[in-house]
Amino acid sequence: MHESQREQTHALLRERHIDQALFARPESVTWLTSFAPPVETGPNLFAASYPLVWYDGGQFTLIVVDAYAELAAPFASAADGQVVTYVGYTVDQPIRSGAHLLATFESLLHHSSRLNIGIEREYVSDLVVSALREQKLTGIDHWLETLRMVKTDEELAVLRRNFALTDIGHAAARQATVAGAREIDVWNALHAAIQRAAGERVPVGNDCVVGRRTFNIGGWPGNWELQPHDSLIVDLSVAANGYWSDSCATYYIGERTDQQEKMHRAIQETLDFAESLLRPGAVAKAIDQQTRAYLAAKGFAVYPHHTGHGVGTSGHEAPRLVSYNDEVLQAGMVIMLEPGTYLPGVTGTRLEDAFLITATGAERLTHHDKS
Amino acid sequence: MHESQREQTHALLRERHIDQALFARPESVTWLTSFAPPVETGPNLFAASYPLVWYDGGQFTLIVVDAYAELAAPFASAADGQVVTYVGYTVDQPIRSGAHLLATFESLLHHSSRLNIGIEREYVSDLVVSALREQKLTGIDHWLETLRMVKTDEELAVLRRNFALTDIGHAAARQATVAGAREIDVWNALHAAIQRAAGERVPVGNDCVVGRRTFNIGGWPGNWELQPHDSLIVDLSVAANGYWSDSCATYYIGERTDQQEKMHRAIQETLDFAESLLRPGAVAKAIDQQTRAYLAAKGFAVYPHHTGHGVGTSGHEAPRLVSYNDEVLQAGMVIMLEPGTYLPGVTGTRLEDAFLITATGAERLTHHDKS
Repeated sequence: MHESQREQTHALLRERHIDQALFARPESVTWLTSFAPPVETGPNLFAASYPLVWYDGGQFTLIVVDAYAELAAPFASAADGQVVTYVGYTVDQPIRSGAHLLATFESLLHHSSRLNIGIEREYVSDLVVSALREQKLTGIDHWLETLRMVKTDEELAVLRRNFALTDIGHAAARQATVAGAREIDVWNALHAAIQRAAGERVPVGNDCVVGRRTFNIGGWPGNWELQPHDSLIVDLSVAANGYWSDSCATYYIGERTDQQEKMHRAIQETLDFAESLLRPGAVAKAIDQQTRAYLAAKGFAVYPHHTGHGVGTSGHEAPRLVSYNDEVLQAGMVIMLEPGTYLPGVTGTRLEDAFLITATGAERLTHHDKS
Repeated sequence: MHESQREQTHALLRERHIDQALFARPESVTWLTSFAPPVETGPNLFAASYPLVWYDGGQFTLIVVDAYAELAAPFASAADGQVVTYVGYTVDQPIRSGAHLLATFESLLHHSSRLNIGIEREYVSDLVVSALREQKLTGIDHWLETLRMVKTDEELAVLRRNFALTDIGHAAARQATVAGAREIDVWNALHAAIQRAAGERVPVGNDCVVGRRTFNIGGWPGNWELQPHDSLIVDLSVAANGYWSDSCATYYIGERTDQQEKMHRAIQETLDFAESLLRPGAVAKAIDQQTRAYLAAKGFAVYPHHTGHGVGTSGHEAPRLVSYNDEVLQAGMVIMLEPGTYLPGVTGTRLEDAFLITATGAERLTHHDKS
């Protein structure tokens, strides 16, 4: 699993003269190993760190708290991988997972002053770095981001499953969107539908907001009641098997106002237009600029956010479809497109689909009803 | 808000000659400020760190990514508090929250080689520590744990609300526990009931497992179908307003077997017995030992886990009711008791209640049906 990810990483690190490296960014750890810890209730209570990956000249060691031993076990069968656990919960002595992690990590190190060690500095804790104090350290934050852009078949299989789960969520959300329900009621319906289909807990993002809310672009569902003429933006992502999905639809309570009808149709057409721009060789910033211009020419307020972005072990990753980005689309990238138009505090519309860049164009991966 | 927490911390740090300190452990940050970021979908995508608290001679600065500005705003009104945000998401330039965080943190520092700076080393990233390299650093992990044991009235109000939410979850779980349903169906029912009552998303832990599972003490709900004669352990906690709750009940599908009836009654009696030991002055390890001995004398397998634990900004905190712990109960502590007995792969029973230690004994805070 994820052999090609590790091969690419090994090649990159060698090219940049990094002998050993410590990865700690959640997206990096999952991309390198396919392992992803549950997140629903925050960090593991008895862990001393998010899972780490220690790279040493082509070998990758996944370091996790013992509670994750079973979940991490598949990685132990990789030819270039191993799993090392450290003690977390203890009943007969004080919980000191920090000391256990440090001792475990130190046992992996080959001390030598000639080594150049890369670390993801935004995520590696001072505790763990204390084991490396005598070494030469190089920050490698963000290094894997461009490698992550083109997906493998293995990753695409997971992503397709996750987009199917957001489709299920949207079907439930559409049905639950009725006057008198609250945002949280719609959320309960869609989250339950997703978990029923998955047969397990699944974290779900991102937004569920009525148009009347002051900040009506996004936000978590709350106690707001759906009233006639409200719009409801439902932006859904799920994280299953370490990969995210994404998607957005806008629902309306009762008859759409003329304004809402016009906004909705304009965004449908803008999404179709943006889709028509997707193909290998297309430049990210050009898609962004042309899509904005298309919507503006129709006379609608242009969204203040990105036009789209990649999705994978992060819900928002490269290539970003934004004004500064020269990155070029390649076959195998998975791209979100999400144009919107908003009247703050009144109503709003956003529609979002996912696309796999193919040899000649793009294949839509989301199939929720956006009519 | 949380003035007394900061006063205690200030006194402790002065006593130990710490001039400045950086807190990064989630439980510490919430306990010091009452601020808690949402956790349901993992760390904020555009943040470079979990929220931090910078202590400087009695003043506390909460450092959060700008997405949390509104959520963190109440802390800005504290006489000894302020909120500083750093830039996370940007649309017109690459997202570089790490650089923004570092610059923001550096702007707070008073450089002087005479200062002794405390840091929670298990949670502060190497990036942030790089701003402190010339200083004398002292590890202060775990220092706040004993201060957190006795709850303030403000904390108790939040905890009572959260225990009421777990009561609601249990009522829904009991109703959903029917043959043919799966663990995940029960979970959907209880999670939705909790969020319906709260009017917002609420993270929910801990366990929902049929007794037939190999590891039948705990675990996340899955695709296991509830069958006649199964037991179902439902251990529920919620995290709302930064504080956890906890609770456990065991449900049965159809008629209980004789064995299950005996186990259930034994655990009810053991929980009652343990409750009778709660009072100021009681020693944690004595409660643990006496409760185990009581269950063993009845001829049942004694649980391999703790007898109980504190609960607050962490779901499992001091004082732990375990064999090594000399800590003494004090009025104002909130203590979980959770005896259980398990036949691995067959059936299991655990019951758990929360108690506030009062001047003379204990007040039960959980009111779910454990019959």
